Amino acid sequence: MPSFATHPSDAELAEKRRLLNGIQERRDQAGKLVAGVAAACDVDRFKAPASDKPNAKRWDSHISPESQLRGPCILKQAASYMSDPGIVSLGGGLPSSECFPFYEWSFKVPTAQHFFKDHDESETPTVQTVTIGKHDVKAGLSEYDLSIAMNYGQASGSPQIMRFITEHTELLYNPPYADWKIAPTVGSTGALEQTIRLLFDRSRGDSVLAEEYSFSTALETFLPQGIKPFGVKMDDEGLLPEAMDEMLSSWDETARGNRKPHVLYTIPSGQNPTGATQSLQRRRAIYSVCQKHDIFIIEDEPYYFIQMPPYLPNETHGVQASEDVESFLAGLVPSYLSIDIDGRVLRMDSFSKVLVPGSRLGWVTASAQIIERFLRHAEVANQGPNGMSQIMLWKLLDQTWGHEGYLKWLIALKNAYTQKRNTLLDACEKFLPKSVVSWTPPTSGMFLWLKCDPLQHPEYPAPPIEDIEGEIFDQAIKTGVRCARGTWFRAEPDTPADGMFFRATYASATAEAMGTAIQRFGEAIRRSYQIE
Amino acid sequence: MPSFATHPSDAELAEKRRLLNGIQERRDQAGKLVAGVAAACDVDRFKAPASDKPNAKRWDSHISPESQLRGPCILKQAASYMSDPGIVSLGGGLPSSECFPFYEWSFKVPTAQHFFKDHDESETPTVQTVTIGKHDVKAGLSEYDLSIAMNYGQASGSPQIMRFITEHTELLYNPPYADWKIAPTVGSTGALEQTIRLLFDRSRGDSVLAEEYSFSTALETFLPQGIKPFGVKMDDEGLLPEAMDEMLSSWDETARGNRKPHVLYTIPSGQNPTGATQSLQRRRAIYSVCQKHDIFIIEDEPYYFIQMPPYLPNETHGVQASEDVESFLAGLVPSYLSIDIDGRVLRMDSFSKVLVPGSRLGWVTASAQIIERFLRHAEVANQGPNGMSQIMLWKLLDQTWGHEGYLKWLIALKNAYTQKRNTLLDACEKFLPKSVVSWTPPTSGMFLWLKCDPLQHPEYPAPPIEDIEGEIFDQAIKTGVRCARGTWFRAEPDTPADGMFFRATYASATAEAMGTAIQRFGEAIRRSYQIE
Repeated sequence: MPSFATHPSDAELAEKRRLLNGIQERRDQAGKLVAGVAAACDVDRFKAPASDKPNAKRWDSHISPESQLRGPCILKQAASYMSDPGIVSLGGGLPSSECFPFYEWSFKVPTAQHFFKDHDESETPTVQTVTIGKHDVKAGLSEYDLSIAMNYGQASGSPQIMRFITEHTELLYNPPYADWKIAPTVGSTGALEQTIRLLFDRSRGDSVLAEEYSFSTALETFLPQGIKPFGVKMDDEGLLPEAMDEMLSSWDETARGNRKPHVLYTIPSGQNPTGATQSLQRRRAIYSVCQKHDIFIIEDEPYYFIQMPPYLPNETHGVQASEDVESFLAGLVPSYLSIDIDGRVLRMDSFSKVLVPGSRLGWVTASAQIIERFLRHAEVANQGPNGMSQIMLWKLLDQTWGHEGYLKWLIALKNAYTQKRNTLLDACEKFLPKSVVSWTPPTSGMFLWLKCDPLQHPEYPAPPIEDIEGEIFDQAIKTGVRCARGTWFRAEPDTPADGMFFRATYASATAEAMGTAIQRFGEAIRRSYQIE
Repeated sequence: MPSFATHPSDAELAEKRRLLNGIQERRDQAGKLVAGVAAACDVDRFKAPASDKPNAKRWDSHISPESQLRGPCILKQAASYMSDPGIVSLGGGLPSSECFPFYEWSFKVPTAQHFFKDHDESETPTVQTVTIGKHDVKAGLSEYDLSIAMNYGQASGSPQIMRFITEHTELLYNPPYADWKIAPTVGSTGALEQTIRLLFDRSRGDSVLAEEYSFSTALETFLPQGIKPFGVKMDDEGLLPEAMDEMLSSWDETARGNRKPHVLYTIPSGQNPTGATQSLQRRRAIYSVCQKHDIFIIEDEPYYFIQMPPYLPNETHGVQASEDVESFLAGLVPSYLSIDIDGRVLRMDSFSKVLVPGSRLGWVTASAQIIERFLRHAEVANQGPNGMSQIMLWKLLDQTWGHEGYLKWLIALKNAYTQKRNTLLDACEKFLPKSVVSWTPPTSGMFLWLKCDPLQHPEYPAPPIEDIEGEIFDQAIKTGVRCARGTWFRAEPDTPADGMFFRATYASATAEAMGTAIQRFGEAIRRSYQIE
């Protein structure tokens, strides 16, 4: 369980309120956000007034040759000047919005009071319809409309969604250095791919540190680029700083076959697949090791907002008492960004787990130097996220809910996931044979990590652990349940496994299905272990 | 002007009609397209029944080491089995749609009879409202809904949009080999980046052939990856096959400093920036040279559907007589795909120029081997296009307009661009000094390529041509007009320029603004050349 304050002081709560109010005050002072098609924009204009924070360190030695070679996209630069009213541009090949076959969009979204219920039109009081027209800006109805969102944009995103994300990032993480920036992404999958290209060089035998069990798609992104992941030992709080320090201090390039790592890829909260969450103390210790060995940190945090209270077995789990946004903000375990005095962190955020994955919209936060390189790549890799998602999420988050409404949504989401988690854990308590299966109740995220004891399996030690795991997996499929296999997530699959794990998620199945699934999994385990 | 048949025979028209009708017949036979969240799908099920076409050649020697190292994404594979009704899955970390805050979407789109007019709600007869609910599938109302589109998907796209694109591709290009496939993309910018990673290897000094003036963003994508573009001479029909053959036949790796190219990047129709369109005869000749030297072809065709009748100066340009879809189909200059007996072409299509750029949705077509590698990369690069655009375009193209309606839209779009082109060319005829500026009226695309004669410039030959071009550009800005500079597009900017060009687009400016712009450009030229 995270060691950060679960009972924030009155001063902390007042500070959160001050920050929230400050956003609206800055907006009121700045006035209308005027921006047209493919408008260039710098996030600095949306941040709180400059403080006395120092700037980030420079990362020249960490940036890949490929990234260093990237120049600005000349046509995107040209497009950003288009708004000069005295000049008629025949320069940019942007289609005219008269040729866009969408005139108006409407969508039904929940009001702040009625999150997490599916409603149809007959229950209109709890649902509101929001509408975006093609020419709302020209009509003076809005700062952003379909004629802009449906055209080409800058890789840096539309000023409207950038403003919301920048304010949200500052409110939540407030990095302790001055020149932090954000860049929108096509989701964290794309963000990681771009970050890898920014930081790694396949020509020099690069390597990366990761949790010993890590997100398989991330590992699959590193490998074909010639970058070898090395797994750091973990406990219930995730990555172990001492183990990482020991690995790095004793790094033998010849024995390892790879250059000493200069980057750590970590999922600090509700880690995929183990569900472990690093406490603030743990994060500080890991950050220190990174400073000692000059390691750059990729912080992948899709589950950050699903931070739950501890699980108490055999309790009646009701809907939680409502929580105010100040307490929610103060109770979150701090991001690496919040302790990052060097600017050595690139944090990846995503709307996938908290709103909709299909939006393919997220963002990264890092120092100005890193973000500038990241954007140079985005210009030729994807041109930034799609305009449909940008305007939809802006309409929902910025124009309909506002920052406070979105925080309330996140609280409701966390409560919904807490109930789901409790349901799964209740089923585990009831159906799994504790003599051979153990687990730590997760306090963040979507995943439960089930550890099966290989020593007690009747076939041990004849077949390798991987084969016993495979047999249990097949047995489970036969019994009618599918979990993810632990070996899928191993950072170093070429070494022999010393544990046997299954990842179960409480994200998608109904309460009833979860009960059935865990009952079946228990049967499969008993059959494989020949229990009873 | 393209040399393909502009007056198709009755037999050709009947064949197009047969193909169009065949699509609906296959759908009727196949029945409802059942597919849930992240459903796996192979495009082969949407193609016409197998013929006696041979399969494509294998391209192992052309595929990069990075691409060859890519394995399948294990979690995407696991997700694709989720629909097995007997198995409860706790395997994939996909959020539940109950947590998606969008209940219903509506958008207003034009009816097939009223393209290219902006309408508001008061003119409802010409506009229709289409609606998508969150649980339309469960309610039996649709084959695809928000609960599916807003969740994670496969990199290969949803079966629904894949079906439309596959049918459209077969109808339009019908490759002469059997095992062609399509893969959706996040637009052609992303598609090119992925294709480069698939075909090139920065460790071996790779090079690529391109038109001597080419799309600057494409050149900017090649360069940081250590791939050097070499420019092939062009005429009014684009790339010259004889020049290409000569370059390749005499390639001296030491003198060139790069390995002999194994890939051609070409924009065959309405080329960016020159506006040139390769005739069918020209495409055949280039294809032969590619066969001779074992060159793989990247065909970038964003402007393909904007193929216009020849420009006739000083004519009254009225709205064109309506054209039937069979004539439109038969009149298009064939894609490289249509003459590609080897499967050596990867064609990039995009909805950006024909519907909305903000969708960030396009597709590539190539052999099964190439598409499989492309998808392995997409899984870790972006997970395919966003779900919002997939369902929006499916609702519009597949469910509202249908294939014929979309072809009618393309005809209307082409007519709209024809009028825009004529307006710009009329202005050029009127305002530009023909003694020093010349141009070839484009028959495709969005661009006019204006050639300024450096020999007649008063400062020639003292400053390099690039400097004279820069002076004219600055003069134009001062006069209040911006065109794109020719040098921005040079494939080999390190060699001295032997021509002076400006790219003007008729895509975005109004008729009035185009007149003003060209008048100003004429003034700037006269001032720089000291004419009158």
